[in-house]
Amino acid sequence: MIVLLTDFGLQDPFVGVMKGVIAGIAPRAAVVDLCHGVPPQDVRSAAFCLMSSARYFPAGSLFVVVVDPGVGSERRVLYARGGRRAYLFPDNGVTGWLERTEPFLEVREVRDGRFFLPAANVLPKGGRDARPPASTALPAGGSTFQGRDIFAPVAARLSMGLARSRLGPVIRRWERLPFPSAEVRRSGIVGEVLVVDHFGNAVTNLPADGVGGGLVSFRGRRIGPVRSSYVSVPPGRALAVKGSSGFIELSVRGGDFSRRFKAVPGDRVAFERR
Amino acid sequence: MIVLLTDFGLQDPFVGVMKGVIAGIAPRAAVVDLCHGVPPQDVRSAAFCLMSSARYFPAGSLFVVVVDPGVGSERRVLYARGGRRAYLFPDNGVTGWLERTEPFLEVREVRDGRFFLPAANVLPKGGRDARPPASTALPAGGSTFQGRDIFAPVAARLSMGLARSRLGPVIRRWERLPFPSAEVRRSGIVGEVLVVDHFGNAVTNLPADGVGGGLVSFRGRRIGPVRSSYVSVPPGRALAVKGSSGFIELSVRGGDFSRRFKAVPGDRVAFERR
Amino acid sequence: MIVLLTDFGLQDPFVGVMKGVIAGIAPRAAVVDLCHGVPPQDVRSAAFCLMSSARYFPAGSLFVVVVDPGVGSERRVLYARGGRRAYLFPDNGVTGWLERTEPFLEVREVRDGRFFLPAANVLPKGGRDARPPASTALPAGGSTFQGRDIFAPVAARLSMGLARSRLGPVIRRWERLPFPSAEVRRSGIVGEVLVVDHFGNAVTNLPADGVGGGLVSFRGRRIGPVRSSYVSVPPGRALAVKGSSGFIELSVRGGDFSRRFKAVPGDRVAFERR
Repeated sequence: MIVLLTDFGLQDPFVGVMKGVIAGIAPRAAVVDLCHGVPPQDVRSAAFCLMSSARYFPAGSLFVVVVDPGVGSERRVLYARGGRRAYLFPDNGVTGWLERTEPFLEVREVRDGRFFLPAANVLPKGGRDARPPASTALPAGGSTFQGRDIFAPVAARLSMGLARSRLGPVIRRWERLPFPSAEVRRSGIVGEVLVVDHFGNAVTNLPADGVGGGLVSFRGRRIGPVRSSYVSVPPGRALAVKGSSGFIELSVRGGDFSRRFKAVPGDRVAFERR
Repeated sequence: MIVLLTDFGLQDPFVGVMKGVIAGIAPRAAVVDLCHGVPPQDVRSAAFCLMSSARYFPAGSLFVVVVDPGVGSERRVLYARGGRRAYLFPDNGVTGWLERTEPFLEVREVRDGRFFLPAANVLPKGGRDARPPASTALPAGGSTFQGRDIFAPVAARLSMGLARSRLGPVIRRWERLPFPSAEVRRSGIVGEVLVVDHFGNAVTNLPADGVGGGLVSFRGRRIGPVRSSYVSVPPGRALAVKGSSGFIELSVRGGDFSRRFKAVPGDRVAFERR
Repeated sequence: MIVLLTDFGLQDPFVGVMKGVIAGIAPRAAVVDLCHGVPPQDVRSAAFCLMSSARYFPAGSLFVVVVDPGVGSERRVLYARGGRRAYLFPDNGVTGWLERTEPFLEVREVRDGRFFLPAANVLPKGGRDARPPASTALPAGGSTFQGRDIFAPVAARLSMGLARSRLGPVIRRWERLPFPSAEVRRSGIVGEVLVVDHFGNAVTNLPADGVGGGLVSFRGRRIGPVRSSYVSVPPGRALAVKGSSGFIELSVRGGDFSRRFKAVPGDRVAFERR
């Protein structure tokens, strides 16, 4: 199973084209969309998505992450093998938060251009019989769409049994976005908003476990104790709730916390023990 | 075939995670997205979607509906068997409109927690070999994402042959959103806007059949006779048209009715016989 | 493989319903979304999408294009066979740009209503055993959703082996949207913005090949030389770059060109040789 995570959105054919390339090389590969709504080039948001989602996918899944402010630079393309899943991603730190719970066993640089799409101006006539180009260079006709030219064909070939050792050399150092851990003090925990979701819930970095007696505040404003579900408060009321990814979330029952409180990632959140 | 209908949107990984959970349990299940663009917690909109769409899916399809203002409350999760399709949904009335044309033969409460995902803090190490937890309790680490923790795993297990009788007891009473039927009078029909679609078309509850001679009006403003296609009027002109779901729709040819007339669900619409 | 390209968006169940209809007729067909974010009825945008994307799909793919300002008019539904792929589309010119590189070998009018869905008011009881209606007429209950009633069932039947000759007669003339070719002058090339993508990049009709020494300008404002990747300029700076579809694109590194410069399709772009 190939799992796609990008910031391509669904307005354009970018995701569809990646699926076309994959189908041309690996017709039987199952391709699943994890999410394409990552804000453009927002590595932090993609890191959260990977950290909170990957463990729900079956062993053997190959995640393809294309959220990449540095596309076209010297920034490397990496392949990593975790305990039960594998990852193809740009070397920009995007797996940093995931690696806290799923440490990588092996990381390689994806370097062998024979597994990439041929240059844009020598396009394959059809997908299925597309052959690797003679050159190992990156596509000549513009290097802005590596999702199509590098990530998709490499993922497809891996799903067809290409040995990972052929991708390129094992590396020892790669980027890891540092996780902004909440600060545990005697009086409580001080943290921040990590991401805001589609419903307007603000997911924080305050762990949801072991926060029995106490109150959560948002930018100094008291929200209340940590609830275990939305219906603990009347409709329209703000609350702190044990979120589905293991962190405290700030919500409005039947409403949009982020809009009402103008919450954005980085906003200060605190839990005060009683 | 498992068919997903949610209000999760596609900005976040929620839908992707549900597919991950399903794939971990039922690797060969075909999963189709009916729609994830239902406005947050809008049961009425989801009811319309089910009513107008379900009949186009093959016999044996299992619909999974997660549009749920009451998530985490005492609100039950239900399984229903219609004549040719089956449904997994929260007991909030969302199937009420569908049941007018596809009455349910059997409805059960989904109660056996062994078929749910284990608690968030005892996450399965990998999908495929995830075992039901010993406890039958709901996930302990936050009950806000039942799509992932209850609906997806139960749907996957049903698609793998789990007998419905094992889900929980047959029930006799459940919620049904009442359909706002148009009022048929001697002089015509009086109704309302049910939903507004992506193109700005306002779908009404006025039946499209048997409305030969007469005029449609919107909030007292005359729109015109019922046309059978958009091209019956010049570009830019508003019209009433026999819609694809069997109701009269209000449209602007090549334009957006809802934006121009500020139409919203509930707005009054009338058909006057000549 | 059936590839869908529509302007339906993902807010409504339209795309899901098409997949339901296809699954009812051709349960094993692989269906891939190319894009559903084409702006409503924007034939030009869909033409660009087809032109730049089709070649990345495997031989034998069947593209289903439903972007159709003239739905319900006398406008015909066409089937075309290219060199390696096939197309089902409204006769509104949408394949015009694609045909420049993939000329059609045969074009037919899709006329035989036995392969359409039965009229909306004689809906199939279930998908799989849905039979063609006795009549060959278009659906009686509203002709506004041909994606569901014509395109989906015909595509599904083609994927099941229906001979194309049974669809309808070969035709010799059909609409082709003219491609707005850039004008090559002695001093350079003058062209325009074709489309704007999700990232705000403005894709032009200036070919990306053979534009070595020279400068690109946008509406008279100098942007700079043609770069081969975004990282050639500092973050926040506008640049012209060799785009992934073979044309020069205008971008802002880490930003949104279209928003900053209010770029829209049709805006004048020029390349001046040095």
